[in-house]
Amino acid sequence: MESLALHTDKYQLNMMYAHWKNGTHLKKCVFDLYFRELPFENGFAVVAGLEQAILYLSNLRFTEDDIRFLREEEEQYDEAFLRALKEWRFTSDVYAMPEGTLAFPNEPLMRVEGPIFEVQLIETALLNMINYQTLIATKAARIRHIAPDDILLEFGSRRAQEPEAAIWGTRAAYLAGFDATSNVKAGQLFGIPCKGTHSHAWVQHFDDELTSFRAFAEALPDQTILLVDTYNTIKSGLPHAIQIGKELKKRGKTLQGIRIDSGDLAYLSKVARKMLDEAGLTETKIFASSDLDEHTILHLKSQGAAIDAWGVGTRLITAYDQPALGAVYKMVAIEDGEEWRPTIKISSNPQKVTTPGRKTVYRVIDRKTQKAHADLIACVEETIDTEKPLVLFHPVHTYRKKIVENYYLEELLQPIFRGGKLVYKRPNLEEVREYHRKQLGQFWEEYLRNLNPQEYPVDLTEKVWQTKQDMLYTIAEKIRKEEKNLS
Amino acid sequence: MESLALHTDKYQLNMMYAHWKNGTHLKKCVFDLYFRELPFENGFAVVAGLEQAILYLSNLRFTEDDIRFLREEEEQYDEAFLRALKEWRFTSDVYAMPEGTLAFPNEPLMRVEGPIFEVQLIETALLNMINYQTLIATKAARIRHIAPDDILLEFGSRRAQEPEAAIWGTRAAYLAGFDATSNVKAGQLFGIPCKGTHSHAWVQHFDDELTSFRAFAEALPDQTILLVDTYNTIKSGLPHAIQIGKELKKRGKTLQGIRIDSGDLAYLSKVARKMLDEAGLTETKIFASSDLDEHTILHLKSQGAAIDAWGVGTRLITAYDQPALGAVYKMVAIEDGEEWRPTIKISSNPQKVTTPGRKTVYRVIDRKTQKAHADLIACVEETIDTEKPLVLFHPVHTYRKKIVENYYLEELLQPIFRGGKLVYKRPNLEEVREYHRKQLGQFWEEYLRNLNPQEYPVDLTEKVWQTKQDMLYTIAEKIRKEEKNLS
Repeated sequence: MESLALHTDKYQLNMMYAHWKNGTHLKKCVFDLYFRELPFENGFAVVAGLEQAILYLSNLRFTEDDIRFLREEEEQYDEAFLRALKEWRFTSDVYAMPEGTLAFPNEPLMRVEGPIFEVQLIETALLNMINYQTLIATKAARIRHIAPDDILLEFGSRRAQEPEAAIWGTRAAYLAGFDATSNVKAGQLFGIPCKGTHSHAWVQHFDDELTSFRAFAEALPDQTILLVDTYNTIKSGLPHAIQIGKELKKRGKTLQGIRIDSGDLAYLSKVARKMLDEAGLTETKIFASSDLDEHTILHLKSQGAAIDAWGVGTRLITAYDQPALGAVYKMVAIEDGEEWRPTIKISSNPQKVTTPGRKTVYRVIDRKTQKAHADLIACVEETIDTEKPLVLFHPVHTYRKKIVENYYLEELLQPIFRGGKLVYKRPNLEEVREYHRKQLGQFWEEYLRNLNPQEYPVDLTEKVWQTKQDMLYTIAEKIRKEEKNLS
Repeated sequence: MESLALHTDKYQLNMMYAHWKNGTHLKKCVFDLYFRELPFENGFAVVAGLEQAILYLSNLRFTEDDIRFLREEEEQYDEAFLRALKEWRFTSDVYAMPEGTLAFPNEPLMRVEGPIFEVQLIETALLNMINYQTLIATKAARIRHIAPDDILLEFGSRRAQEPEAAIWGTRAAYLAGFDATSNVKAGQLFGIPCKGTHSHAWVQHFDDELTSFRAFAEALPDQTILLVDTYNTIKSGLPHAIQIGKELKKRGKTLQGIRIDSGDLAYLSKVARKMLDEAGLTETKIFASSDLDEHTILHLKSQGAAIDAWGVGTRLITAYDQPALGAVYKMVAIEDGEEWRPTIKISSNPQKVTTPGRKTVYRVIDRKTQKAHADLIACVEETIDTEKPLVLFHPVHTYRKKIVENYYLEELLQPIFRGGKLVYKRPNLEEVREYHRKQLGQFWEEYLRNLNPQEYPVDLTEKVWQTKQDMLYTIAEKIRKEEKNLS
């Protein structure tokens, strides 16, 4: 990957510059990356984007070209600053939830610790990658949830928001349970199985449909999936496909599938299944595509559609019903001598108040059921004695308490970079898929369902909660004083 | 740009392979790229994506790595086919509307003519790039339309669907009238002005807001824009910013702006303007950001918000209210001896029936008003005698006619590649912006307004219309016959 040092917001560079001028650029601080609301009213999100973030951070430096460009900018940056950029190498610590983890609102998916100079620089790109891929993985998980045993194919490249979205988006879909993609580049880069049929243009290219089907089956006798809706699905496409299916059978081959891309998919698929079965082509699968998503698939299944494989395009790869996840990256602590001093960002909207301090996330898991009770946000240096009962309480409605016994903790944030060096053993994509499946197994169905899921508890330890309360009171007091001075 | 030969759908490769096996791969054909519906219920779309498409096509070849990957695929492609891919170079002709052109449904934005082998390969990437960038340029034009004299800044990188979307999306926004971007890479690549302020983290990094403002103004005295909503906009942020403004003034400098990122933007901006003016800081501009789009900006303006500059993020860069443009790429003609034989794709949905033949698009412009009457889709070889009155008629409701006199024609599709060689003199981005502004000037306001615009006529010549009708009847007849044979 080329260096994307300049794939950042100008204000990051201007803050880096102002810190450098102010002599505060090497002061360390801690940022949390998290989202405040789940997308699609889902019960969970599926973390994705870490792999690309690792590639980004591993290759991050300012090139000669970058420096030349910055030199001409209206800010007229100091030459010494530009030299500092040129010599700069990434030195921070990064902790993150592995891809495939189920994540919830207001818990850090990532924690970055390092000099403000560089921790600020990387905000834009990290959010850009993790926002998008987490969104798509979550959407894919929703689709997988309502079609647990079907074949799911990602077909959205032509409608994706640029090639990178097609390629990384389909990876996110695959890690959250899709079976294959149409995008060949994604197959090459990530080893995702690549599947393809043919288009209407293939049929149009020939004088008649049957000849076109026969030519396709001739070329790819083991991968023949025939698109049957170019002229008339029931009266032309299916009879022709069945004829080819029989011809393949005589050669000991199987017509792999037929694909329906328009019309009433419920009705047509049922007719198609009947016709195929009656012709003895029971192994031939029925593929459907046409603006599908979890809602249309659910409805089609409830109508008894005989569809084995779903090609999902636009609505997955763009997350059509909610095309952005609003993850943010907020400062939570700053170096203060030998200590980390927690920082807080207040807001007139209480949901936007940050949770101060250098924190990690534990998943509290029941030893007997192996299911998760809650996630618990704790100070990094805090130790929790798992031999004792754990009192979980709601961070706003604190009277809502739950006492948990016979549990263990899994720490979700893992070290990725230390001192700028990659220390994380990157799992391969099949391992990520497997890990994601195991993650799903940790949760009760009530949290996993697509519609009206139960809200999974994300709680703070007493210590984190108290720090936040104390800071809120202190800062409110401070603002009152400042106002007095100004008036 | 690296070769994106494999950034394609698997079925394209499989069709290429099947054509190659069938000996039909060098048969030439013509594809049109067009959309059927305008996005956002707008009256027009703004073409964008051609620049990236040119880079893509100019660098298109199969690398050794690509061939190695394909060799291992389950299709077990013939070695001779893989060799053919390796040796293949782009040889097609491409015609396209220049970026910045106003385009309408069902008219080709691009026409590609060449061997089916390669014309099929490029479908996915062309749609991917043109769909996205046209969408964003159109969204940007809507925002510019309701804020004609304000400063518009693209601020969406962190919510874009991957880095490429941030970078090419902001270029699309700029060509359709935005003034600047926060994305530094886009500044470097395309010369778009890059602007930046500072974040809440800058303020939090200091013990108090005033000190943080002063340090920022110290570093960038000529580019100081202060974010005033970290603690309390009216009681803290604005008084502190005003103090810095006065300090800058003493040094002969100007506080460039203040930025409000939360709260009631209408109310706060009016208060801010008053406070700034009373302090003599009349030149200090007010910047606003916070989930803005054309709707919120329109409402804020109608409330008299005193905002000079709008930072637009998520809702522009993802086209939040409609994140995909459904442009398609359809075969319209095929080589038949020395001739082009028109092809048609029928559909049970009449809007999805293609318009057959090798066609171009003319804009019919009134000599007196210099305004556009309609777009006219004609056969490439057709000549229109502009000395005679032109009869325009609605392609479906054909009784609706309009006779135009004293007009001239502008051909919108321009040659981009001939025989695979780039023949188009690529305008620079400032020229594209200027061309787009001139395009807007060709249209009556009734077509340009954001809400309930008039439908701009896109008509067919008699010849194109008749060809389509004839083919529809012929093909309906043919299907009836085939059905009879099958039953």
